[in-house]
Amino acid sequence: MAKTIAHLGPIGTNAETAALIYGEMIGEPRELRPYNSIAQTVRSVAEGETDLAVIPVENSTEGSVVMTLDSLWQYDRLQIQLELVLPITHSLLSCGESLEQISAVYSHPQALAQCQQWLDSNLPNATIIPSNSTTEAIILVKDNPRAAAIAAPRAAKLYNFPILVELINDYPDNCTRFWVIGLTPIDEGERVSLAFSVPANLPGALVKPLEVFAKRGLNLSRIESRPTKRSLGEYVFFVDIESRENEPHLTGEALEELSAYTEVVKVFGHYRVRGVDRFSVKALS
Amino acid sequence: MAKTIAHLGPIGTNAETAALIYGEMIGEPRELRPYNSIAQTVRSVAEGETDLAVIPVENSTEGSVVMTLDSLWQYDRLQIQLELVLPITHSLLSCGESLEQISAVYSHPQALAQCQQWLDSNLPNATIIPSNSTTEAIILVKDNPRAAAIAAPRAAKLYNFPILVELINDYPDNCTRFWVIGLTPIDEGERVSLAFSVPANLPGALVKPLEVFAKRGLNLSRIESRPTKRSLGEYVFFVDIESRENEPHLTGEALEELSAYTEVVKVFGHYRVRGVDRFSVKALS
Repeated sequence: MAKTIAHLGPIGTNAETAALIYGEMIGEPRELRPYNSIAQTVRSVAEGETDLAVIPVENSTEGSVVMTLDSLWQYDRLQIQLELVLPITHSLLSCGESLEQISAVYSHPQALAQCQQWLDSNLPNATIIPSNSTTEAIILVKDNPRAAAIAAPRAAKLYNFPILVELINDYPDNCTRFWVIGLTPIDEGERVSLAFSVPANLPGALVKPLEVFAKRGLNLSRIESRPTKRSLGEYVFFVDIESRENEPHLTGEALEELSAYTEVVKVFGHYRVRGVDRFSVKALS
Repeated sequence: MAKTIAHLGPIGTNAETAALIYGEMIGEPRELRPYNSIAQTVRSVAEGETDLAVIPVENSTEGSVVMTLDSLWQYDRLQIQLELVLPITHSLLSCGESLEQISAVYSHPQALAQCQQWLDSNLPNATIIPSNSTTEAIILVKDNPRAAAIAAPRAAKLYNFPILVELINDYPDNCTRFWVIGLTPIDEGERVSLAFSVPANLPGALVKPLEVFAKRGLNLSRIESRPTKRSLGEYVFFVDIESRENEPHLTGEALEELSAYTEVVKVFGHYRVRGVDRFSVKALS
């Protein structure tokens, strides 16, 4: 039976590209299923509607995808299978013939933010209009020579829509981390991700949990706070830890000690990280 | 001469409400100036175009306003004058006569996120369309009985537009912190805010800076990481510290020691926090 893989749709999004690349890696028969939101994508795998989901976690320019973090914190059984780091390039798509014509630019807020300086320099007077996805932006500007969409070169091919300017992202090393999530723990690899809440407003409530890792020489490659949504000043902390492959017991010990200084701990998985090169992304186009 | 106060426009936004309330507090002649983005609002005061700016920092449901943090990190002289905590209520505005008619809902992404559960339960089939501000959403749906905008009750009055459903935010205690920024340090009050970067990928690089505060009993009421935008895994940390009013020297000592464990430190100010009650917000409507 084909493995079902959920992702943020419609086709042509970077999440779909990540899902396609993951599908090629596993080699098994698989069926991709686009969903309308990240929350629905996560729920589909948590409730057994799909086998796996591919979700964006963090972009090098714009930071965390907060919808992903908030969605993961709601469930107890989700486990990261693998991390894919994808290079992300943005192009300006339009049926117009020159930049001078363009008076409005449509795209997903993350893509708009990743090209903000380019837009300020090259289209300072254009109206910036957010859309639900980069592909939705293409549909919105399809017949309008005075409007442009920011999307991946792959989307331009899929929707048979011309590229006016290539490579407009402000930082050339722009990339996004995607997690493949499922229900089976992997328990090996270089990374462990978890989240915890701490008792509110204790002086240094965050120091104790961080010391648990520091005293074992375990590096935190990321820490991110999200509000509990109950009241200002109450947070859930999301951390990524570099696991020591030759000393895996260190991570287990740290997680055990962590519960003494936290309220709720959720471990999202111990997993491998795979960089994807530009060539593999381009080969899909 | 009137004090000029920049805020995210157009009129009717929650940022304008905060600016109006601050204006009443200072009692002096003042002139409000709306800008199109938070980045432009911050730049106006950094470059001396306006005297002050009022900017949203953090919402209790949706977390940090990342554009504000990224903008503050770019400048060296900005100083927080005061924090205002405003209760935020959202209503559904439409010229339609019933919920059954509504097939699309427009608003700023923060407002949409703060009403997400209400939308899921009450308008599960409506298309959700992001806009640049809550007031822009009103303009977009003005003549369409099948569309609705999410905005503050005050905006409904200003634009003379009917409220279909009152109070649709998911969390009743929904509130947003606003900072009034200028160029003069205040140096008194219960809160100190700063940001620092740490050497990348050192085990426990964040533990040392946090210990500096913890060992003096100084509580961190918030910590937030933002990418440096150079590469994945490099962060700037934004922290708020509860200053001890009877032992103000502790904060100064901590800041001095902090430089030993960090790369760049920027102190955004030592300032007072004022809660604003619902009555004061309503009195503006």
